[in-house]
Amino acid sequence: MTNSSDSRPGWVLGVDSGGSGLRVALAPVPSADDTVPTKAGDRADTAVSRQPVRTGPGGIDAGHLMEQLVPMAKALLGEVGGDGEIRAVAIGAAGMATLGDELRDLLPDALAEAFGVRRLALAADAVTAYTGALGQRPGAVVAAGTGMIALGTEGKKWRRADGWGHLLGDCGGGAWIGRAGLDAALRDHDGRRGGSAALRARAEEFFDGPVTELPGKLYPRTDRPAVLASFVPEVARCAAEDDPVAVGILRAAALHIAEAAAAVCPPETECEVALTGGLFGIGDLLLVPLKEELSVQLPRAQAVSADGNPLEGAVVLATALALDALALPCDGRLLHVPEETGGAPTPQHSR
Amino acid sequence: MTNSSDSRPGWVLGVDSGGSGLRVALAPVPSADDTVPTKAGDRADTAVSRQPVRTGPGGIDAGHLMEQLVPMAKALLGEVGGDGEIRAVAIGAAGMATLGDELRDLLPDALAEAFGVRRLALAADAVTAYTGALGQRPGAVVAAGTGMIALGTEGKKWRRADGWGHLLGDCGGGAWIGRAGLDAALRDHDGRRGGSAALRARAEEFFDGPVTELPGKLYPRTDRPAVLASFVPEVARCAAEDDPVAVGILRAAALHIAEAAAAVCPPETECEVALTGGLFGIGDLLLVPLKEELSVQLPRAQAVSADGNPLEGAVVLATALALDALALPCDGRLLHVPEETGGAPTPQHSR
Repeated sequence: MTNSSDSRPGWVLGVDSGGSGLRVALAPVPSADDTVPTKAGDRADTAVSRQPVRTGPGGIDAGHLMEQLVPMAKALLGEVGGDGEIRAVAIGAAGMATLGDELRDLLPDALAEAFGVRRLALAADAVTAYTGALGQRPGAVVAAGTGMIALGTEGKKWRRADGWGHLLGDCGGGAWIGRAGLDAALRDHDGRRGGSAALRARAEEFFDGPVTELPGKLYPRTDRPAVLASFVPEVARCAAEDDPVAVGILRAAALHIAEAAAAVCPPETECEVALTGGLFGIGDLLLVPLKEELSVQLPRAQAVSADGNPLEGAVVLATALALDALALPCDGRLLHVPEETGGAPTPQHSR
Repeated sequence: MTNSSDSRPGWVLGVDSGGSGLRVALAPVPSADDTVPTKAGDRADTAVSRQPVRTGPGGIDAGHLMEQLVPMAKALLGEVGGDGEIRAVAIGAAGMATLGDELRDLLPDALAEAFGVRRLALAADAVTAYTGALGQRPGAVVAAGTGMIALGTEGKKWRRADGWGHLLGDCGGGAWIGRAGLDAALRDHDGRRGGSAALRARAEEFFDGPVTELPGKLYPRTDRPAVLASFVPEVARCAAEDDPVAVGILRAAALHIAEAAAAVCPPETECEVALTGGLFGIGDLLLVPLKEELSVQLPRAQAVSADGNPLEGAVVLATALALDALALPCDGRLLHVPEETGGAPTPQHSR
C-alpha cells in the first residue's frame, strides 16, 4: 500500500501538544517518487490554540484534545478547498512517553470517526523534536528549553538520555541554569563561596525584591521549573558581561548537555548532532562551550542546525506514515503506531 | 525584674513545632544565681503530639497551635502538682522566619489568656537548633536534615547561610544528597558520565521498580524533598561500600556544609561549630570529609557536639526570658520577642 487510489487530494495532519497550547499543521502528501521523507515538507497552513490540552492522572485528556483538534483540522481543510482526504495523523505530546495510556486507548477510534483516518502515530515530544530537526536521518538531537533531553537513533532503536525533570535531571536545561543562577545569588547574599553579586543584583531586579523573598515567591507556585527557567536570560546577560560565576554556569550546562548527546549518538564514525529548542536562543554564550565540549566528549559529532521545529517533525512522521515509509523505531513508548492503523506494529512487551 | 516574687514554683514551657508534630517541654526556672543559662537545664517532662500544626498562607495556624498546646501544657503542669506558674514560653517553629505573621499577631494575647504568661519568644527552628546545640554561647550551628541551614552569632546579630529550600539551596542537606544519588542512578541508566551502577541498583530496590519510573513516583508527591532525602541511607550505604560516585556525593555535600558554616562563624580567633540534625546520623562517612573541609575553609573552627536538641533549645530560650537574661539577638525575623511581653523590643524595621 502506497498512496491512496482515492482521486481526492491527500493531506496529513501534524499535531504538537504542549504546555503553551496545541498547534496543528496540514500538509499535502508529497508525490510517490519522494517516498522516504527526511525533511519537513511544505505545510499548507497551521492553526494554533493557546489553550493547553488538559492532563490528568491518565495522561493527556483525549476528549479535550479531540474537542480542539477536530474544529481546527476542519477549518484548515476548509481553507484548502474542503474536499481533501486526511491520510495520516501524527501527534507529538509532552509526557506521551510515560502518561499516554488514555491517548493510546481512545484516540485511534476517535480519529477514524472524525476524519476517516486510519494511520496514526503518537510520539513523545522528544521524537517530534528529533524528526523536526533531522527528519528520519540517523543521528542525535538535543532538545532544550525548560528541560533537556537527548534522543538518538541509528534507525533500529531509540537511545534516550536525561529528560527526567527538574529534580532528577534535565541537567543543563533552562530550569537547571536558572536554579544555578539563583543559587549563586543567594550564595552572594549569605557570604558563601560561589556567590555572584551580579547575579544577585539581576535576581533582585527580575524578581522585584530582596533575594531572601525568593523562597516565598517560588515554592507556592505550581510551575516552579518555568519560574526557574525564566531567570536564564539574566544568567546569559551576566555571562555576556563576563561575570565569572555566570560564565561557569553556562560552561557547566554545556558539559551536561554534551554528556547527554554523547550517550545517545549512534555508534558510527560520524554523527549529526542537532541542537533544538528555545534554550539555544542564548546563542554563542552557550553554543561555543557546548561545541568545545562536544569536540572533547564526542569528536565524531558534527553539530548541525535543526531543519525544523517539533510541529514540522509531526508532519514528517505523518507524511512517512501516509507513504508507508516510516523508518524510525516504534518502541511503543517514545513512538507508538497502533497496529490497526497500518503502521509497523508496536511490540506488546514494550508497552 | 528578675524572678517573680510569686511564691508558687516557677516553670517555663519550651515548644518545638515541625513537620512531624508538636513537642512541649516543661522545665523549672533555675535559681536566681544561675542567671545566664548557656545550656539546656533539666526538663520536668515532655509531651508529644504527632499531629503537625496546620500551616496556611499566613503561616502557622495560631488557633490550631493553641488547641494542641493548652491541654498538653496543662497536663504537664498537672503532673508536677498543678499549682505552678508558667513564667515564659518559647516556641520554635519551622518557617517562623518567613511565614509567622499570624503567630506574631495572635499568640501573645492567647498565651496571656491561657496561662497568664506575658513573656514569649518566637524562634525560627534554626534558632532553637542553635540554642539547643550551643545554649547562648557565641559560635555557629549547622542544622541538617532534609534541608540544611547554618546560623552563627557573636551575640549581637545573627548570620544565616542557606536554608533556602530544595530548589534554591539547602546545599549538602538530605534532599540534596538524595537527589544527587538519584541523578547518578539515572546517569547510569542513560549511559551518561557520572553514573553509578551501585546507586542505580539501590534506587531500583528502594523505589521498587526501574529508575525510569522515578519521575512518575516523585513529581506527583507534595513532599518531594522528603522523598529525595529518603534515599540518603542508600547513598551512605554505597559510600560505605566504596562506590566512588557515592563517596564523591558525600564529599561534595561536606564541601557545601563547610561553606555555610564558614559564612556564619563569628569573626573571632576561635569558633565553636556544632553539627546537629538527623543528617549527621550518617556518621564518619559525612563527618570525616566535613571536618577535613572545615579545617581547610575555617581553620579556627572547633567542631563540637551539640548539647541538646531544638526542644531543649526552646527551653533554653524560655529560661533566659524568665530570668531576664536573654543574650541572643532579637532581630524580629529569626528570633522575635514581642515588646509587651517584657523582652528586648523587636525593632520594627526588621519585621
